[in-house]
Amino acid sequence: MKPARLALVGAFLAISAPLSAQVVVSHSITEAEVRAAQDAWCNALVEISTTYRDSGREAATALAEQVIDAGYGYQLGTVLFKPTLTTNPQTFRTTRAGALSYFVGGDAEFAGDSGFALKGWTECAPETAAIFITGNTAMTMGKVHFTDGDGNTTSVDKTWGFVKDDAAAIRIVLHHSSLEYSGD
Amino acid sequence: MKPARLALVGAFLAISAPLSAQVVVSHSITEAEVRAAQDAWCNALVEISTTYRDSGREAATALAEQVIDAGYGYQLGTVLFKPTLTTNPQTFRTTRAGALSYFVGGDAEFAGDSGFALKGWTECAPETAAIFITGNTAMTMGKVHFTDGDGNTTSVDKTWGFVKDDAAAIRIVLHHSSLEYSGD
Amino acid sequence: MKPARLALVGAFLAISAPLSAQVVVSHSITEAEVRAAQDAWCNALVEISTTYRDSGREAATALAEQVIDAGYGYQLGTVLFKPTLTTNPQTFRTTRAGALSYFVGGDAEFAGDSGFALKGWTECAPETAAIFITGNTAMTMGKVHFTDGDGNTTSVDKTWGFVKDDAAAIRIVLHHSSLEYSGD
Amino acid sequence: MKPARLALVGAFLAISAPLSAQVVVSHSITEAEVRAAQDAWCNALVEISTTYRDSGREAATALAEQVIDAGYGYQLGTVLFKPTLTTNPQTFRTTRAGALSYFVGGDAEFAGDSGFALKGWTECAPETAAIFITGNTAMTMGKVHFTDGDGNTTSVDKTWGFVKDDAAAIRIVLHHSSLEYSGD
Repeated sequence: MKPARLALVGAFLAISAPLSAQVVVSHSITEAEVRAAQDAWCNALVEISTTYRDSGREAATALAEQVIDAGYGYQLGTVLFKPTLTTNPQTFRTTRAGALSYFVGGDAEFAGDSGFALKGWTECAPETAAIFITGNTAMTMGKVHFTDGDGNTTSVDKTWGFVKDDAAAIRIVLHHSSLEYSGD
Repeated sequence: MKPARLALVGAFLAISAPLSAQVVVSHSITEAEVRAAQDAWCNALVEISTTYRDSGREAATALAEQVIDAGYGYQLGTVLFKPTLTTNPQTFRTTRAGALSYFVGGDAEFAGDSGFALKGWTECAPETAAIFITGNTAMTMGKVHFTDGDGNTTSVDKTWGFVKDDAAAIRIVLHHSSLEYSGD
Repeated sequence: MKPARLALVGAFLAISAPLSAQVVVSHSITEAEVRAAQDAWCNALVEISTTYRDSGREAATALAEQVIDAGYGYQLGTVLFKPTLTTNPQTFRTTRAGALSYFVGGDAEFAGDSGFALKGWTECAPETAAIFITGNTAMTMGKVHFTDGDGNTTSVDKTWGFVKDDAAAIRIVLHHSSLEYSGD
Repeated sequence: MKPARLALVGAFLAISAPLSAQVVVSHSITEAEVRAAQDAWCNALVEISTTYRDSGREAATALAEQVIDAGYGYQLGTVLFKPTLTTNPQTFRTTRAGALSYFVGGDAEFAGDSGFALKGWTECAPETAAIFITGNTAMTMGKVHFTDGDGNTTSVDKTWGFVKDDAAAIRIVLHHSSLEYSGD
């Protein structure tokens, strides 16, 4: 893996405020950490797309697994994940396998998935509407704007919930993404 | 207001586990409290619809205000609220006024709102996919099924974030609702 | 009340990190807030002593009440307070009345109290050993060094637990103070 | 190690409320868990004493290490630990080594320690004055009564702070113990 990609995978783990001494333990989340985690998610998505284009599905899948393991909280038991484009009865992806399939497809258990992260995204930008932080938990809501290789942009309504784990890493434990309501 | 409705308004405040002694203070949230809060939201929605049908818009609006003040956390500063049917640039309703308008309409500042709670809902049932509780915060994701007066059912994907406030009342600080993806 | 004293009373409420926008709500506690709250407690103690010397018991008691109401969490239901010099069966001061009596005496229900804050303290300095922050809760442990009017210093072992309340004010909900063990 | 002792070591890890489904993750702490953790600490202390009497220092030290690793939070970075009988400049035992030495002695770095857990304790009973729970954190304050082999009882004022870790285990992150004030 290229150094840039290794750095990317580590981005979720690297988000933490400096503390004044070794004897201070803090599991609280700051606004800056929330914004950095949102950016890290976007960067990871684009990097998976880029890896797929340059190196194929196997490499993209390997990267997606590392991103999920570093940035989501499936280790904690479950994740509340409602991706943008899933349908019943597989709308909610509370397992790691369900999340991986959504991002890169190729899992017969989730036959409808074509791989959202493989769609050639070249840019991804969060636009935050509001943040609610309490304790080691943070919730954020807003738009995320995706740009594909032809320069077309898609916007979704997105909510993330984060927790800071025992190792002081920020993990996604909630992710609700939905297409904008057309108003019809 | 009828006693039943007063009881309803108080339901959010009444959700709390019994403690063994006065000297125990607990702001943690239990699974039972999360489920009760979901039910209270559904009951409130149906009651606003019923009040509108029986007593008109003014009464329904007064009830909606009480529900919002008892059940949402606008007192805490903001709420991350993405209702099912809102459109840009008013997709997110981070203020009390924006939430009230979504439920009962009638606010010139939110001209597109027709009042989601006035649509004659007769039943509302949450179907939970997963719950994540940490500290005084809980997040829950799943379906909510709405039934109207003709017996038609609409299902949405819904995420709620709750906090237990200083008075040990459960308040909604996050609410993301979206129509099901059609798969087209 | 003199402006300096009003400012003092408000010090607990004023401790909060700046946020980038109104739509960000944060109830997390930072290390800086923990240290500021410790300093505010020390400053309040010295100011009560000074007020007693300059203006008498009534004024000192009024100030102590304001400090307790602004800086402790009795509004939340109880406080886990073990002062330095209390004895059985009144060791623990879980009520506001018990705390007030400890600081300024004069309550027949707590006949043994002579008023710790009335002892002519001229300096108070926390020396922190370790801090543990998680969520809207922080715990801190260390020494507090008190200097009286004759320049004599007394050191105690002190633990504080803080929570950030709904109004984002830091409140003491735990306070364990003890004389140093003599080693005999 | 005898099965009873293995069970004991596991007691801290076993304290958790049953949840209704695999898809519910809860890191909140209940009052019952707090009380169980207090009892587990007491049981562990007596068991270390018993092990020392029956099997010698090496066995007692091995057990103490397991108790510390299962029940304290040194893995999280530091613990705010002020034992009953420590003196300056080693009053606070923020490291695992300092805690182990306090309980079983034998560490040249902490030459003053004779091993509190080796003093032949036959009974240990917590008497809780108040509990404050918020989020994945709990604080508790009260007396702990120790009985030695001659039937003599010693009482201390004790505060514990607990967190529920990522694995849903309750860990001590704060422990302040002090001799009762004599009133002289």
